Amino acid sequence: MALIVQKYGGSSVADASSIKRVAKRVAEAKRAGNDVVVVVSAMGDTTDELIDLAQQVTPLPPQREMDILLTAGERISMSLLAMAIHNLGVDAKSFTGQQAGVITDETYGKARIIDVTPSRITDTLAEGSVAIVAGFQGVNPSTNDVTTLGRGGSDTTAVALAAALKADVCEIYTDVDGVFTADPRIVPSARKLDRVSYDEMLEMAASGAKVLMLRCVEYARRYHVPVHVRSSFSTHTGTLVTDQPREGEEVEQPIIAGVAHDRSEAKVTVVGVPDVPGKAARIFEVVAGSGVNIDMIVQNVSVAATGLTDISFTLPATDGAAATTALTEHQPDIGFRSLQYDDTIGKLSLVGAGMKSHPGVSARLFAALSDAGINIEMISTSEIRISVVTRADSLDDAVRAVHTAFDLDATEDEAVVYGGSGR
Amino acid sequence: MALIVQKYGGSSVADASSIKRVAKRVAEAKRAGNDVVVVVSAMGDTTDELIDLAQQVTPLPPQREMDILLTAGERISMSLLAMAIHNLGVDAKSFTGQQAGVITDETYGKARIIDVTPSRITDTLAEGSVAIVAGFQGVNPSTNDVTTLGRGGSDTTAVALAAALKADVCEIYTDVDGVFTADPRIVPSARKLDRVSYDEMLEMAASGAKVLMLRCVEYARRYHVPVHVRSSFSTHTGTLVTDQPREGEEVEQPIIAGVAHDRSEAKVTVVGVPDVPGKAARIFEVVAGSGVNIDMIVQNVSVAATGLTDISFTLPATDGAAATTALTEHQPDIGFRSLQYDDTIGKLSLVGAGMKSHPGVSARLFAALSDAGINIEMISTSEIRISVVTRADSLDDAVRAVHTAFDLDATEDEAVVYGGSGR
Repeated sequence: MALIVQKYGGSSVADASSIKRVAKRVAEAKRAGNDVVVVVSAMGDTTDELIDLAQQVTPLPPQREMDILLTAGERISMSLLAMAIHNLGVDAKSFTGQQAGVITDETYGKARIIDVTPSRITDTLAEGSVAIVAGFQGVNPSTNDVTTLGRGGSDTTAVALAAALKADVCEIYTDVDGVFTADPRIVPSARKLDRVSYDEMLEMAASGAKVLMLRCVEYARRYHVPVHVRSSFSTHTGTLVTDQPREGEEVEQPIIAGVAHDRSEAKVTVVGVPDVPGKAARIFEVVAGSGVNIDMIVQNVSVAATGLTDISFTLPATDGAAATTALTEHQPDIGFRSLQYDDTIGKLSLVGAGMKSHPGVSARLFAALSDAGINIEMISTSEIRISVVTRADSLDDAVRAVHTAFDLDATEDEAVVYGGSGR
Repeated sequence: MALIVQKYGGSSVADASSIKRVAKRVAEAKRAGNDVVVVVSAMGDTTDELIDLAQQVTPLPPQREMDILLTAGERISMSLLAMAIHNLGVDAKSFTGQQAGVITDETYGKARIIDVTPSRITDTLAEGSVAIVAGFQGVNPSTNDVTTLGRGGSDTTAVALAAALKADVCEIYTDVDGVFTADPRIVPSARKLDRVSYDEMLEMAASGAKVLMLRCVEYARRYHVPVHVRSSFSTHTGTLVTDQPREGEEVEQPIIAGVAHDRSEAKVTVVGVPDVPGKAARIFEVVAGSGVNIDMIVQNVSVAATGLTDISFTLPATDGAAATTALTEHQPDIGFRSLQYDDTIGKLSLVGAGMKSHPGVSARLFAALSDAGINIEMISTSEIRISVVTRADSLDDAVRAVHTAFDLDATEDEAVVYGGSGR
């Protein structure tokens, strides 16, 4: 008997019949002898519809009220799922984030979990019932007001509960069969990974892989929660995110886990910056002061004759206006000539724990891109990742070329896995 | 400066633009120097839509989960209203029933309020903010689970909060201009009442007047909360429900407050009951045992030759199946011959505190009905009410005839009040 935390996203509980299908799955896990905790998101587009209603009422909703509004969505899905499970003859009780003991800080809209005290969940499991918990929400204990965790919040709720309950596994149900070596919509020969390390998953999430959110992986790594990413539309085994080697498995990891891509960034170039100490620092101070996180940075070699240099950096395109406005305001004191803004870039990232110990990975990457006629505009590296910026319209070709160059393409047998996802 | 509790029903907050209109009204009351607490129902048909979703998932939803589901509706409307008020430059904070201190028993689906401890509301008013409270819901303190108050629950929430806060008035906003001498859809010359006593309002609510629910009036009477029933679509003064005589007002009340009607009842006749002691009691024991409340009872004079009698009673038509099933099961031990069930009856009730001290009211009522050619099937009376059962299809004529006979018809000037309701 195991303690399993399952998480179902909005598309898995989009309507009454989806909820009934999920209920069947939960009931099976319970009848197989497990203790089961289920974390659930709001149904389908509920959250977007609520945001839309708020915008009809006011352009600037107070964040406390916004969080109260948005948490209504999970109340609906969690109680419906509890009813549907009950209807299959299995006891189930639903709990809000507050009732489940999800304690957060007071940053409405993107609160961070600071503690989980799931005594009501433990009691419910001890009674032999399934516990359903609203994802995406917690409580700010200083005011007893509800908070929301922001994007990817339900995955984080699931991992945090799994950690607090010392669950054997946290199953994240999604609409794909697991984590793939690349996005199968771009690379049809992408292979599902049977397992991937926390570090690799972190880099992939940070590099645009959407299957798991970064903070959820961070949480899982910190508390050593094994995460099983799998499809709610099939019974296939998915991808296990963990650092524990599987029994009988070879210690040697494959060099490369996968190729991630990201189309959501933009590039800002600050043109004609005086090449004197402190100017670059001042630029990034100004950008950070506007609440924007930057990703990659390139400083060109200074042209001796002018004493000027160009500095380029990438950032989420949604933050482009904030960053360029802040820089323009500080143009006089920084003393740059002009700003260029480019949101037609793409980022490709090659991720793999094995690349630490294998020389020549970057050479092979650059050769593959060069052979495919793709120009590299920026480069950044970590111990287990190499990222390059290309033109947005050559990104798909770049991903396919690199996927092939690193022997990631599936054999015909393996390719069946994705084709058979039953979506 | 007064402390005002305002309650807005689902039709007053049906969409974003209605919510903005209510917000304007709340902001005006606040800017006029009052402390304002607003109780709000779920938007429009939200509750019905949620019930429908539940029924798609299971035919028999567990009541605890049903209450969690249904309370999502007020979370949405209360936070949107708080946002809309905030947008007008007035601070506003929304609270669930639990946060507002609405403590109930554990009867999910139709919980009774057992205490109200509104310290967060008092604090919010002291800060100078408007407090928005979810109607229809409370908390069961023994489990910390949410409960719903059943039909008319939001009105009851408002009156209970007004009592606990010692509010100067509880304003119930609805889609009509107040309490009328009869339903204006049936009697176009019905007049709006400026004031009505708790006792009269109780009898009218119990007799089918839908403007206020019975339990809300009971609560108001017990705690002496002045209730102002008025339209959210106009600024007209509505009807004040109170026992306090208005300053300078004549002590003498008008004889009759109004004519209520009810089409929701049915009549059961138990035919051929042995006319021996204890048989009637046994019949009503059986009906009560099936959870059904009966209203009027008539026992016919026994026919000496047979030693048998007929007993008729009325009950809510929705309870008809439960009552007749229970009686049929007990036919052997009660020993009646047959059951007749008739759901084509109507009930007319004449209500007025003045009738206690004015003889001849019933004579005048019966004469009016007789002159209009309407047959009376059953009669019951209280100190301030006379009710008669007629055929359903002659009920409207009966209401109009009685309204005219008791001089309740509006003059042309008064009639303008309803016509100008701006609906």
